[in-house]
Amino acid sequence: MPNTPLLDKVRSPADLKSLSDRELRQVADELRAETIAAVSETGGHLGAGLGVVELTVALHAVFDTPRDRLIWDVSHQCYPHKILTGRRDRIRTLRQKDGLSGFTKRSESPYDPFGAAHSSTSISAALGFTMARELGGAPDPALGDAIAVIGDGSISAGMAYEALNNAGHLGRRMFVILNDNEMSIAPPTGAMSSYLSRLYADKPVQDLKNAMKGALSLLPGPIQQGARRAKDLLKHVTVGGTLFEELGFNYVGPIDGHDMDQLLWVLRTLHERADEPILIHILTKKGKGYAPAEDAADRGHARAKFDLVTGKQKKAPSNAPSYTKVFAEALIAEATRDDKVVAVTAAMPDGTGLDLFAKVHPTRMFDVAIAEQHGVTFCAGLAAGGMKPFCAMYSTFLQRGYDQVVHDVAIQRLPVRFAIDRAGLVGADGATHAGSFDIAYLANLPGFVVMAAADEAELVHMVATAVAHDDGPIAFRFPRGEGEGVDLPERGIPLEIGKGRMIREGSRVAILSFGTRLGEVLRACESLAAKGITPTVADARFAKPLDRDMILRLARDHEALITIEEGAVGGFGSHVAQLLADEGVFDHGLRFRSMVLPDVFIDQANPRDMYDIAAMNAPQIETKVLDVLGIAELGKRA
Amino acid sequence: MPNTPLLDKVRSPADLKSLSDRELRQVADELRAETIAAVSETGGHLGAGLGVVELTVALHAVFDTPRDRLIWDVSHQCYPHKILTGRRDRIRTLRQKDGLSGFTKRSESPYDPFGAAHSSTSISAALGFTMARELGGAPDPALGDAIAVIGDGSISAGMAYEALNNAGHLGRRMFVILNDNEMSIAPPTGAMSSYLSRLYADKPVQDLKNAMKGALSLLPGPIQQGARRAKDLLKHVTVGGTLFEELGFNYVGPIDGHDMDQLLWVLRTLHERADEPILIHILTKKGKGYAPAEDAADRGHARAKFDLVTGKQKKAPSNAPSYTKVFAEALIAEATRDDKVVAVTAAMPDGTGLDLFAKVHPTRMFDVAIAEQHGVTFCAGLAAGGMKPFCAMYSTFLQRGYDQVVHDVAIQRLPVRFAIDRAGLVGADGATHAGSFDIAYLANLPGFVVMAAADEAELVHMVATAVAHDDGPIAFRFPRGEGEGVDLPERGIPLEIGKGRMIREGSRVAILSFGTRLGEVLRACESLAAKGITPTVADARFAKPLDRDMILRLARDHEALITIEEGAVGGFGSHVAQLLADEGVFDHGLRFRSMVLPDVFIDQANPRDMYDIAAMNAPQIETKVLDVLGIAELGKRA
Repeated sequence: MPNTPLLDKVRSPADLKSLSDRELRQVADELRAETIAAVSETGGHLGAGLGVVELTVALHAVFDTPRDRLIWDVSHQCYPHKILTGRRDRIRTLRQKDGLSGFTKRSESPYDPFGAAHSSTSISAALGFTMARELGGAPDPALGDAIAVIGDGSISAGMAYEALNNAGHLGRRMFVILNDNEMSIAPPTGAMSSYLSRLYADKPVQDLKNAMKGALSLLPGPIQQGARRAKDLLKHVTVGGTLFEELGFNYVGPIDGHDMDQLLWVLRTLHERADEPILIHILTKKGKGYAPAEDAADRGHARAKFDLVTGKQKKAPSNAPSYTKVFAEALIAEATRDDKVVAVTAAMPDGTGLDLFAKVHPTRMFDVAIAEQHGVTFCAGLAAGGMKPFCAMYSTFLQRGYDQVVHDVAIQRLPVRFAIDRAGLVGADGATHAGSFDIAYLANLPGFVVMAAADEAELVHMVATAVAHDDGPIAFRFPRGEGEGVDLPERGIPLEIGKGRMIREGSRVAILSFGTRLGEVLRACESLAAKGITPTVADARFAKPLDRDMILRLARDHEALITIEEGAVGGFGSHVAQLLADEGVFDHGLRFRSMVLPDVFIDQANPRDMYDIAAMNAPQIETKVLDVLGIAELGKRA
Repeated sequence: MPNTPLLDKVRSPADLKSLSDRELRQVADELRAETIAAVSETGGHLGAGLGVVELTVALHAVFDTPRDRLIWDVSHQCYPHKILTGRRDRIRTLRQKDGLSGFTKRSESPYDPFGAAHSSTSISAALGFTMARELGGAPDPALGDAIAVIGDGSISAGMAYEALNNAGHLGRRMFVILNDNEMSIAPPTGAMSSYLSRLYADKPVQDLKNAMKGALSLLPGPIQQGARRAKDLLKHVTVGGTLFEELGFNYVGPIDGHDMDQLLWVLRTLHERADEPILIHILTKKGKGYAPAEDAADRGHARAKFDLVTGKQKKAPSNAPSYTKVFAEALIAEATRDDKVVAVTAAMPDGTGLDLFAKVHPTRMFDVAIAEQHGVTFCAGLAAGGMKPFCAMYSTFLQRGYDQVVHDVAIQRLPVRFAIDRAGLVGADGATHAGSFDIAYLANLPGFVVMAAADEAELVHMVATAVAHDDGPIAFRFPRGEGEGVDLPERGIPLEIGKGRMIREGSRVAILSFGTRLGEVLRACESLAAKGITPTVADARFAKPLDRDMILRLARDHEALITIEEGAVGGFGSHVAQLLADEGVFDHGLRFRSMVLPDVFIDQANPRDMYDIAAMNAPQIETKVLDVLGIAELGKRA
């Protein structure tokens, strides 16, 4: 534990009010040390928080939280905020089961007025609070100002632009702080990013600081409230920012986000005088103040537990390559053979493995920025132009492009390949990152092919299948984390569309798995074998089109049929049920069960624990088999 | 039929190449007359097409379609394009069953390289074609230039901004034509709209034309190819447009989009010289050239068949108020009683009925522009701020905000009310506007309440239910068109959450309806009664939470249970199947069937015909009942 004498006295943001500016600087230094120490024990998002330590202290010192609604976009950067807002005693439970969430969360604290985890939502939420205040909304605590803190990566998303456009039009007092560190999870891309860089390319920040102070010091005495609009005042102290001004915001900046004096001065001035939407552009350094983070390519974005001195991460040795890496290498190989294969990511080159792809095929990888809507339709255009685009997104982020999947891809039957990473429960990132809904929201789209890989070798074949399938959209999903450790094929072989595979023939009960629960199913079968029960096991491979023959045969030849998938109701099991109903299989009885994610948002834990909560690990599968066969659970007595 | 001697000779755009500029002007005049005449017979989107008659002719005259990919955003404005591209002989089948689609459609013509109907997709698609060309994509026909034509309303959507941001970054030659008529379906809103107005507030267009011509005439002789970048060239001839320039586009404009000389000159110049992304800002008048459209508040946006001389529409007299109007009036009444009720639309005040709401409660209606992502999260912020927001969107457009529904509303359990209009099949707008997926994509979200109104009186009660339900998200869906003609309650009474209602008690087979198929179910029952079959009928009201007691009782007391809903598989019927499976109801046999929309995108027709194709009208329900009971279909012999 670092030595933090002043921070120790800060129980809540109210305690900051009585501190001098010098003391606030010291609180920031101590807060930085405490953040680094905590994350070294828990792992988590380090770099983003370190970049906003001074901003966090300054905001809580100047504004009146939780009455003023402080909304952290994405909220990777919220750890210092959590430490300052009464959660320091639990900060070493970050991202653990039953611990603090790694993100802001309404249910966790009144200081988290709007939770986040996906990017670019903060301005919309802040505008909501702002207009609620104007209209007499009376939540507890009462409504003060709304402040959104958004990164330069997040502001590239269309949603942020939509919100700026609306907020600029409505013209009410609210604050958007653009935290510009030239780095989101990956270096930001796109014209907006270049624009932001141009805003300060010519002017050192230090000059600007002086310019601001100088301009304001020229004003005659205390200005009458409302006598002169803050807008006019501020116009003289800004450089650039015309894009934001054109959207109806007053622009202030860019200022040094690690200079506490400057931050406090600007925030106090604007807090006192603003009567319109204000955008404050601050420059920060991701990973600031911790050399191993500052020096890393990703500026310490996310870290496993690490050694405090060296920054070296303590990762458990892995037994098998990650699904992400297997996907990337399979796609690289396919692209080497087929020059029409291209890959698209929405600001997640590392997370999707496309950074590896870009090294081998640099002209055929597109990072469209945080822009899933555009990314999907861009892929549709590429497909219409004769390419074979792979749209690589996490399940939960693909939700951002859902209408485009329906309208631009499915209705036009364009052969876009969706590589859906982070399918199912993902662990420490919790409910916001769970890939729970993609099976349901894709498998009912006419003409779609929807696959899930049961292991990493299957994934290689599914990449090949997607390359080969050129007459309509196709998706394959795979989970976060390591594979099963199976041998990888030298080269993927396209699967026959709509054909599952038998894993083992047994009797009485058939288990039909879609995705990587297959391993748990087989473990359950080992245990069941000891009880004399030998289920038939099949890997469906396809949620759409279903392997009708295989499924109807399994239903015919068994007393019971159990489907299992890493997704919510409405997906694979529901399609199987629809088939069985249509075919009259239920008319004369079938012990049919569909194991799906439960109807709750499951908080962070390791994935195994999360699947325990979901009742989808081997023991629960075993229980389900025994239940459906009406057998008392002998296992419980053993 | 208007007299169109020159247009008669234009069989395809190639025929325009040999015409003089004067003749092209005449073609445009004749094309306008033909467009008006055709829509007077078919009904459809009139104003948008009339605004781009000159642009359509000029683009096809200057560019080389279909090799050059011309993409009409939304494509309400595509009728003149269809007339010019070999579809004039079928133009009077627009929006009819088996006729031309009211939108561009890849399967209809090679001149429609990318279909549309939802807004703001065109720039993404154009960039896809552009990069496909760079990478050697070789569809048939080969790839030339990509040109996106997008309205000032559509460019307010975040997706368009994402695409501009990406295209500006990639920097390849492509064309975006911003068709600025200060009018999308409704007058556009937001800061971007004000910005566009400012671009030409000070300068009459006529001056600009001269300025452009003057500037270019100063250039020395023919400019060497590549010797000077088009960008530098163009900078001197533009006013304003910095916002687009900051996003990496060269900006040209604003120019008069009805001045054929100017259009041809600008397009020819840019076609010859551009080597970077170009945004051409043209000013047009929606409804141009047809007084009854120009003079209408909506500039003739969409019209029923009309009298050519007076413009008077020939609408069939309606028997009952539309669901949209019933919703709006119920919400107005609730908002009068409860000052926390607010309403949000994404650029569809008329379509959602919120124009009526705004007349009574002007400060409590927000039109956020075409910005569903922002709109949903703005509602979440309003809810967190203590308001009762109603997010009124069409089913198919709510897809645009799906991630926000999951991430900002459902996970945070915020009481946003979703009023989902255009549920189910919608008629002339066809597959892109069908509200097929909302039941599935909402009902598996933990904590959501999902309702469907069986008639307009139910809708009034559901509005009241949504106002009263303040501890989580709630959605209610209702179809396009007229209600059943039932009496409306004086005031809505909140329904008990998760309770259905029995409509009639019968025997042997139970039909459980969710939504407005109930009327068809009852008509089927009348016919079945003549055959001695009297089904039990229930209105589920809720897809979530299900009325478990009622459903299990129906299953227990009948040989057969049939669910029916105006949605795709994965929704209500799937949730019922999951319940029945979990409860072991299938173990000993139940003739269960789930009637859902079929696994195809159904083309435009009137809704009744579309439901015939979907096999969900009374005769098909009757057949389903007879089938499930194993009764030979006597009806067919009668």
